[in-house]
Amino acid sequence: MSRSINLAVVPGDGIGQEVVAQGLKVLAAVLPQDVKLETKEYDLGAQRWHRTGETLPDAELDSLKNHDAILLGAIGDPSVPSGVLERGLLLKLRFAFDHYVNLRPSKLFPNTATPLAGRPDIDFVVVREGTEGPYTGNGGSLRTGTPAEVATEVSLNTAYGVERVVRDAYERADSRPRKKLTLVHKNNVLVYAGHMWKNIFDRVGQEYPEVTTDYLHVDAATIFFVTQPERFDVIVTDNLFGDILTDLAAAVTGGIGLAASGNINPTGEFPSMFEPVHGSAPDIAGQGKADPTATILSVALLLRHLGHEHEAVRIEEAVAADLAERAPGTTRTTDEIGDALAVRVAS
Amino acid sequence: MSRSINLAVVPGDGIGQEVVAQGLKVLAAVLPQDVKLETKEYDLGAQRWHRTGETLPDAELDSLKNHDAILLGAIGDPSVPSGVLERGLLLKLRFAFDHYVNLRPSKLFPNTATPLAGRPDIDFVVVREGTEGPYTGNGGSLRTGTPAEVATEVSLNTAYGVERVVRDAYERADSRPRKKLTLVHKNNVLVYAGHMWKNIFDRVGQEYPEVTTDYLHVDAATIFFVTQPERFDVIVTDNLFGDILTDLAAAVTGGIGLAASGNINPTGEFPSMFEPVHGSAPDIAGQGKADPTATILSVALLLRHLGHEHEAVRIEEAVAADLAERAPGTTRTTDEIGDALAVRVAS
Ligand SMILES: CC(C)[C@H](C(=O)O)[C@@H](O)C(=O)O
Ligand SMILES: CC(C)[C@H](C(=O)O)[C@@H](O)C(=O)O
Repeated sequence: MSRSINLAVVPGDGIGQEVVAQGLKVLAAVLPQDVKLETKEYDLGAQRWHRTGETLPDAELDSLKNHDAILLGAIGDPSVPSGVLERGLLLKLRFAFDHYVNLRPSKLFPNTATPLAGRPDIDFVVVREGTEGPYTGNGGSLRTGTPAEVATEVSLNTAYGVERVVRDAYERADSRPRKKLTLVHKNNVLVYAGHMWKNIFDRVGQEYPEVTTDYLHVDAATIFFVTQPERFDVIVTDNLFGDILTDLAAAVTGGIGLAASGNINPTGEFPSMFEPVHGSAPDIAGQGKADPTATILSVALLLRHLGHEHEAVRIEEAVAADLAERAPGTTRTTDEIGDALAVRVAS
Repeated sequence: MSRSINLAVVPGDGIGQEVVAQGLKVLAAVLPQDVKLETKEYDLGAQRWHRTGETLPDAELDSLKNHDAILLGAIGDPSVPSGVLERGLLLKLRFAFDHYVNLRPSKLFPNTATPLAGRPDIDFVVVREGTEGPYTGNGGSLRTGTPAEVATEVSLNTAYGVERVVRDAYERADSRPRKKLTLVHKNNVLVYAGHMWKNIFDRVGQEYPEVTTDYLHVDAATIFFVTQPERFDVIVTDNLFGDILTDLAAAVTGGIGLAASGNINPTGEFPSMFEPVHGSAPDIAGQGKADPTATILSVALLLRHLGHEHEAVRIEEAVAADLAERAPGTTRTTDEIGDALAVRVAS
C-alpha cells in the first residue's frame, strides 16, 4: 500500500472531462490524510489532434510511464475520422503499457434499472485480453476504394499472451466464493486461435483443481447474458469478444453509466489505466447529464490495484448505498452524484 | 413460382432429425395439391464422420447442387472435435453454394416469453454476410502446442462481397414500411475492413434515397438489442458480428427455439439452404423436447425464396396464432407442435 499516489489524468473527449472531475473529487475524499495525492493532467484527445495533428507523442508516452496509475475519461469524437484516436491514443496506451488484463466487473446493484425481467442476480467479472487478438492493427487494404478492394484484419494470438491472461483469470476465480471460470471463444470456426485458447485454458486449469470450468461459444454466451446471467462468475475471453460482451453486460446491469474498467499491467512494469467502459457521448457532453458513477467505480479499481483495498471497498459500498437510497424518479446532475458520493466516502 | 420442389434434406445431428421431420410435415401440409414435392435425404453429420471419416464428399456436394433448395436441421456433436463438422460440412455448404445473404428475421410474437422487461416491439431482420470475414478459414498456427505458439485468424473482406450483401440489405429495407437500414461493424478498431464496409454502405445508399441509414459499433449494438430493440428494422453486418447478434436477437425474441434462417444465394446459381439458428442440442436430442418452430419458420423462408409467398405467409400466420392460442403453462412435444402447425396451415 503506497503512501503517495502520483496519478496521470487523461480527461479526453466529450463527457470525459466531466466524469473525471467527479472521480478525482471522490478519490480526494476517500484517501486517508497521510496518503499524498499528486495529479498531472494530460491534454490528449480530439482537441489536441485538431490543433496539432498529434494523438500520443513519444514525450507524453514517456512521461506517462512515471506515474503510479492513469485515470482516463473517454476518447473519441465524431469530428475525428473513426479509428484515429482509438488506435492512436487509447489502444496505443493499452498496448504500450502492456495492459494485458482488461478487467470489467458487472454487478446489478439494488434499486437499479435493468432491461431484464425478473431481476436476476448478476455479479461477475470479465477478464478481457487487452494486447492481442483482432486489436493488433495487423491487416491492410489493397486497391482501396475500388471495386477490386480487398481488406484484411488479422487476429494475432500467442501462447505467451493467452497463458498470462488465462492464469490471471484462474487466480481471480480461485479467490471468489463460487470459484467458477468460463472461457468464451468461437473455437468451432476460429479453430487456430480458438483451439490454442482452449488448450491453454484446460492445461492451466489443472493447477486450479478447485475452480469449476466451462466453455461457451461467444454467440451462445450472449444468450446466457440475457437469459441466465447469474450463471457467470469469472469470464475470460479475447479482446474483441470481451469488448462486445462487456457492453452487453453493462446494459443488463443498469447501463453503461455504471460500468467500470481497469486496463491492468499485473507485473507493475508499466502504470495501469482505469476508465469507464462508456465512450465520450458527445451528444450529452457539457450538460451535466453524464453519470460519473462508472468513473468513480473505476477509481475504486485503481485504489484496489495500488493496494488501498479498504478505500476501494468504501467507494463500492458508497455507490451501492447511493443507488439504493436515491429518490425514485429524480435525476441528478453529474456534479450532484459526485458530491453525494464524496460525502459518503468521507464520512 | 415453381410447380415442383426438389428438396435436399440434411437432418444432421442431435435434434436436427426431429425438427426437420416436423418441418417436412408442415411443408407437405401447406403446399397446394398441384405442387409436386420430391425430397432426398442426405446422411451427413457426426455419425457419418465417425463411420467413414467424411464430412462432405465431392459426390454429395455435386448431387446437392441439383436441388431447388436444402433444408438442414443442425450440425455438430461433442464426440467430434470442435470445428470439424462446422467447417467441413456446414460452412463448406455455405461457401460452396455462395450463400452470401444469411437472412435472420427476429420478431417477438405475442404471448411469447422474452427476458426483456416491458415487452418491446421487436420486428427486424439481420442480413449477415455469409461467405467472407473471419469465417474463411484463413489463418494458422505455428509451433502448435508449445509455449511459443502463435495462432492467427484472418478476416478476408472484398468490395465485391461487401457490395452485393449491402445492396441486398438496401433492397430489403426499401421494401419494408419503416425503410431503415443499420450497418453494424467495429470501424474504430478494425479500420481496414470497417472503413471498406462503411464506404460501400454510404455509396450504395445514394441509390436508395428513401432508406434511412445508421451506423453502430458492434459493442454498442448489443446494448440497443436489449434496451431498445424496436429501433431496428434491417441490419447488415459481417459474418462474425452477424453470428453473435442473431443469437442475441433470438434470445430477446423468445429464444432460439423460434429463430429461423436462410442461407441464400440470390443469383440462383446454387441452391439456397434453410436451417434453424439453433444447434444440435445433444442434451435434449431424442426426447421429443425440441421446439420445431424455428425449422418450420425456416421452411416459410424457403417457400418465400422459391416464390411461394402465399404459403410462406400461411406458415408465419399459423405460428403466430399457435403461439397466441396455446394454453399457458403446458409443454408440448416436438411432434405435437408440428401436428398443431400442420393442421393450421392445411385448414
Ligand atoms: C473505443 C474502443 C476502441 C474501445 C474498445 O473497443 O476497446 C471501447 O469500446 C472499449 O470497450 O473500451
Ligand atoms: C455452428 C456454427 C458454425 C454456426 C456459425 O457460427 O455460423 C452457427 O453458430 C450459426 O449461427 O449458424
